[in-house]
Amino acid sequence: MISARVTCGPVASKRAATQLFTAFNGLRLSSATLRPAFVVVHQLQLTPTPQRHFSNSSSSSKINEFFPAKETDKVRRTPPSWPHPVYSYDEMENVVVAHREAKSWSDKVALVAVRLLRWNLDVATGYKHEKAIALNEKDPEAARKKFAMTEDKYMIRNVFLESVAGVPGMVAGMIRHLHSMRRMKRDNGWIESLLEESFNERMHLLTFLKMSKPGLFMRLMVLGAQGIWCNALFFAYLLSPRTVHRFVGYLEEEAVITYTRQIKDIDAGRLPKWETLEAPQIAIDYWKMPEGHRTMRDLLLYIRADESKHREVNHTLGNLNQVEDPNPYVSEYKDETKPHPRKDLKFQRPTGWERADII
Amino acid sequence: MISARVTCGPVASKRAATQLFTAFNGLRLSSATLRPAFVVVHQLQLTPTPQRHFSNSSSSSKINEFFPAKETDKVRRTPPSWPHPVYSYDEMENVVVAHREAKSWSDKVALVAVRLLRWNLDVATGYKHEKAIALNEKDPEAARKKFAMTEDKYMIRNVFLESVAGVPGMVAGMIRHLHSMRRMKRDNGWIESLLEESFNERMHLLTFLKMSKPGLFMRLMVLGAQGIWCNALFFAYLLSPRTVHRFVGYLEEEAVITYTRQIKDIDAGRLPKWETLEAPQIAIDYWKMPEGHRTMRDLLLYIRADESKHREVNHTLGNLNQVEDPNPYVSEYKDETKPHPRKDLKFQRPTGWERADII
Ligand SMILES: [Fe+2]
Ligand SMILES: [Fe+2]
Ligand SMILES: [Fe+2]
Ligand SMILES: [Fe+2]
Repeated sequence: MISARVTCGPVASKRAATQLFTAFNGLRLSSATLRPAFVVVHQLQLTPTPQRHFSNSSSSSKINEFFPAKETDKVRRTPPSWPHPVYSYDEMENVVVAHREAKSWSDKVALVAVRLLRWNLDVATGYKHEKAIALNEKDPEAARKKFAMTEDKYMIRNVFLESVAGVPGMVAGMIRHLHSMRRMKRDNGWIESLLEESFNERMHLLTFLKMSKPGLFMRLMVLGAQGIWCNALFFAYLLSPRTVHRFVGYLEEEAVITYTRQIKDIDAGRLPKWETLEAPQIAIDYWKMPEGHRTMRDLLLYIRADESKHREVNHTLGNLNQVEDPNPYVSEYKDETKPHPRKDLKFQRPTGWERADII
Repeated sequence: MISARVTCGPVASKRAATQLFTAFNGLRLSSATLRPAFVVVHQLQLTPTPQRHFSNSSSSSKINEFFPAKETDKVRRTPPSWPHPVYSYDEMENVVVAHREAKSWSDKVALVAVRLLRWNLDVATGYKHEKAIALNEKDPEAARKKFAMTEDKYMIRNVFLESVAGVPGMVAGMIRHLHSMRRMKRDNGWIESLLEESFNERMHLLTFLKMSKPGLFMRLMVLGAQGIWCNALFFAYLLSPRTVHRFVGYLEEEAVITYTRQIKDIDAGRLPKWETLEAPQIAIDYWKMPEGHRTMRDLLLYIRADESKHREVNHTLGNLNQVEDPNPYVSEYKDETKPHPRKDLKFQRPTGWERADII
């Protein structure tokens, strides 16, 4: 995210910075900076009734699709690379906000990096935290109005964050793949979970894109952010894979917080447009969403659960020996009856599994 | 491979170049350059009876393992990321050497690139093709002796080639992943096959490593080759993915040729050490090799079939629209009764499927 700020230098303006900030931490944004022009730049349009089926017959629906599912003369469809594990509703509702204490130096570096990214964005966008708190103490209702998030603002934020979220897993997977061949050592299953994570994040992005159309500025931002972010993660992972896993763990803590907030806002009636919004077909297929549970709220439950899984996976990987240990999420256990890391939500460990318990 | 030659500049010597050449195209190597010192540098040792089971109890067997399967107190094993499709023996025996005619300019560039790599290696290693032909005409028996491949020479070659073979799929997969997020477009299933290919190549490498121990020089070579090779492919794929797929298709044509030659040499009794060599456990597990079919020859049949699949996949991808078309290897077809691209060997198209037939 800091990278995004750096890249968008050429197009930087108060408004530009504000937009980026909205994407990252919209909740804190003063509505005073949200002029109508801002929305125009974004061109983010919520489509309240997205197309539920992709058909060739209705050409108008195809034009409306931002990225249509590919159906050709002979090909019906391409299923997702990694089938999604099945989550139950109870399990998803049980996902909680959590924070893993930073113990080692590596942990602290990772936590400081996450906080630094935030602080940089605050400064870049001229956000005055004190002002917000002051207003809240004086007049909570006015503060709520001023800082309240709308569906559009949340969607902008989600699209931006998901577009960078798919990078760490892919970069780490590639580095471990090349490493395995170069050093002529087994990888013991890590690559699989890392690539799967990046795929899952890309599915989040594609799902949100089915419900919104980011404007040119947003797309430029994503492009620039990816360039720097990708390189930064590449070198960071070469230097200290453990720190990168912890760093992603902390980022995912934030992701769980933000999706929890969106779910709560729906429940409190603060996001009326989302109450009637249905999940797009791509999401229904991927998460195998049961009938009667295909609203925007259900979708956010699935995505939040995925983020909690990334949080757990990365905190766990950060606890392991980076070279020797098998990936606990794809391992077969000698005692399968005891709780152990899994791809689904059966055993949740928000702050990760400790090495001694699983290796 | 050209990259390897460039990288190993600092350690280049007649012997070094000879070794690389052995790795790439050992058949053409004059035995006059194969002094005993050469073998020492390589330290390539065939283990005639590799450990078939990984156990913690026998510590000596663990030390002998070049890269032991990871078994810990709690973890039994980590299964492969992508389960291998099942090949029948008939299908594997039916794999044939083939060449796809270079039609377009892009095809011709790819073919010239593959030939250039070869030619560069020839020059670098001072190989005199004319001499070999002349000797063969004068005295075929002497020529056979002089240019015959041994098990060790084949193994060196296989290890080197497999260590670079895993790069293109991973690089292409990463680029398409980042591209999908940056451009906010679906990928339509290509990434999956590309990553799976790179994983499969890595399994080839790990399998050969179970049967040999490359020396320091070889490992340095692999390291240098990977660095340059990886970057070259990265930029090539950004420039023209179609050309890279065709290029890999042509490389895989060579791979099928070389494994066919090894199988024929076993059948002709020219590789006596391999006649009794059993496939290592990692290979038995991965390819699900049936009992009674677990020799080195069987292993080479599986690996050759994999290479023929990469040949077909890459030639097919090279025939498609790189941005719009779905990956035919993971697609569901409207008419599943008609032959179409598959992950296994049921329908073989050595020179790839034409776009009109499948899209
Ligand atoms: Fe996500
Ligand atoms: Fe995530
Ligand atoms: Fe291979
Ligand atoms: Fe191959």
